[in-house]
Amino acid sequence: MAIVQFEHRPGILDLGWGHPRPSLLPVAEWAAAGSEALQAYGWQALTYGHSAGPAPLVDWLAAHVGDASPEQTFVTAGASHGLALVTPLLARPGDVVLVDSPTYHLAFPILRDAGVTLGPAPADEHGVLPAEVAKIPAAFLYLVPTFGNPTGRSLPLDRRRELVELGLPIVEDDTYRELFYGDAPPPALWRLGHNVVRLGSFAKTVAPGLRLGWINAAPSLITRLTRLGYVHSGGGVNHSVAMTMARFGASGAYAKHLGVVRERYREQRDALTIGPAPDGGWFTWLRLPSGVEASTLLPVAERHGVSFVPGSAFYVNGDNGHDHVRLSFSHLSPEELTEAARRLNAAISSVVGH
Amino acid sequence: MAIVQFEHRPGILDLGWGHPRPSLLPVAEWAAAGSEALQAYGWQALTYGHSAGPAPLVDWLAAHVGDASPEQTFVTAGASHGLALVTPLLARPGDVVLVDSPTYHLAFPILRDAGVTLGPAPADEHGVLPAEVAKIPAAFLYLVPTFGNPTGRSLPLDRRRELVELGLPIVEDDTYRELFYGDAPPPALWRLGHNVVRLGSFAKTVAPGLRLGWINAAPSLITRLTRLGYVHSGGGVNHSVAMTMARFGASGAYAKHLGVVRERYREQRDALTIGPAPDGGWFTWLRLPSGVEASTLLPVAERHGVSFVPGSAFYVNGDNGHDHVRLSFSHLSPEELTEAARRLNAAISSVVGH
Repeated sequence: MAIVQFEHRPGILDLGWGHPRPSLLPVAEWAAAGSEALQAYGWQALTYGHSAGPAPLVDWLAAHVGDASPEQTFVTAGASHGLALVTPLLARPGDVVLVDSPTYHLAFPILRDAGVTLGPAPADEHGVLPAEVAKIPAAFLYLVPTFGNPTGRSLPLDRRRELVELGLPIVEDDTYRELFYGDAPPPALWRLGHNVVRLGSFAKTVAPGLRLGWINAAPSLITRLTRLGYVHSGGGVNHSVAMTMARFGASGAYAKHLGVVRERYREQRDALTIGPAPDGGWFTWLRLPSGVEASTLLPVAERHGVSFVPGSAFYVNGDNGHDHVRLSFSHLSPEELTEAARRLNAAISSVVGH
Repeated sequence: MAIVQFEHRPGILDLGWGHPRPSLLPVAEWAAAGSEALQAYGWQALTYGHSAGPAPLVDWLAAHVGDASPEQTFVTAGASHGLALVTPLLARPGDVVLVDSPTYHLAFPILRDAGVTLGPAPADEHGVLPAEVAKIPAAFLYLVPTFGNPTGRSLPLDRRRELVELGLPIVEDDTYRELFYGDAPPPALWRLGHNVVRLGSFAKTVAPGLRLGWINAAPSLITRLTRLGYVHSGGGVNHSVAMTMARFGASGAYAKHLGVVRERYREQRDALTIGPAPDGGWFTWLRLPSGVEASTLLPVAERHGVSFVPGSAFYVNGDNGHDHVRLSFSHLSPEELTEAARRLNAAISSVVGH
């Protein structure tokens, strides 16, 4: 039995894990926030909570994101939990759900657990193509348009506007928005249109183990979420952690920590001297030299002491992306990342050389 | 916007809430456990966790319950979350699920969210009737057989044995097992048969706001749970709280706190001098005098300054239980409970007198 999901492989610098660097997790700060929340709120932090999330967090969140009211906010147990909750409310079993191509691969089983059929949204190297998406009947479109997983790229503003004008319901996975390393990203689809459900998360900015995030949506959808049987029975989905986060936000610890991790992840991005340098997020999307396939490269790379996720994992049918690999710069130190890039370049050279 | 689910109504002693007494929530002890867990486990308490739950909690739980191995254990975000997770794995939309009559009413929407049809399991005043249950085709039977909500009663041992011998899959909501005030309860159905999924919870013994519980089931079902898209993506469902609970358990704080709340809830049970005194749990099930209906009594009782949940709420079709009310002794102080009983007796007398 294990404690964490991450599995260390001796001798391998693994660029495959989209996990935070352990030393960037705010262990002491979170302990302080937990104690402060219990001192400030007492029993109210430990009993059945408000179904949509406790007011101290919901109010702080609304002020923090700046573009959603408390009535448009529902506290989740993370973005993937949010996706699992909204999918059955937006689609029926057998419906088609479009997903960006490539996109976050672990969303596929979440969507499929709701019985929907996945289809790739037509896209080019800048992201989804609204005019092409419009031609495909679908219950909704799921995408990670900002510092996306796996590409690190953001959908251009004009495409965002065209997309929300289609009227197709959209689930916007917006988990990387706050991790920008230069200019702020383009506005969220949520901000541009009326038919958008936004998934937010504290997994990347604070810690994944909190299992805490939020949904922004129309108040009518928020009400449907609060009426789900298990949400009502449990008094919200993660009340005690939500109360700690309310304190972590209000005390200024969140803003301070975000400043630190932005700086550190920017350094890590710069240390991974291979692939395009994205403006934010945790990933870069490396196109391999002509004729090199990711699946062929992987065992060679591992013999060189470096690993990654082949690009085909991020396509619904695995039938594309064979010439790309996803590299994460979130988990390793700058020194390790530079060494990983060196090993990967050597592995690629050895394959190209053949 | 609110922080907690509970709504205080001035002038009313409300026996309707199945909530813990605020002063019995272990505020200081939980704060200590949180700090200790972060000190002991550091970043491992805050990153993506093991899908079935972190080893320190799973191992402690297996030793604690004494009748389930780590491989038969999955950490949930509470018993209602556990029910929401297992229902789609055990039943398809349109299937019939049998529920004890009466039973925990907030389970009904959880089950219905999975698209199943609910049917009442035939029962008498001692609980479900196995021979009658056997006649009805169903995907599974849901029940709270030990210190049940709403009756406070436990299913007799011979019926437990007969029930598990039917071979019908059973979901046993076992959330009140540890709150006994005299002799220990009969063995769990889980211990007696092979086709049982047990839902456990820390909501009643520690705090509801933790959103933490567990499922005991065959390893094959545990594996299916770990492969759910959102469980895998999130690294378990409530990792950081699970790590704190591991510490709360291992330090002895759990055993100490359980001893305290058993004593306090026993005192509260004794202070509510109306209705049968159950051997455990949070509720008593009061039969009203002949001719008195719960729905008629409720407004009269509230004018007397006391409230409750009418018995019909705990029947699938609301077509039974009109002569019963559920009284909770979990939430009020002994003094308040004695006064509530006095007011309720006065209200009943005034109705009978008419």
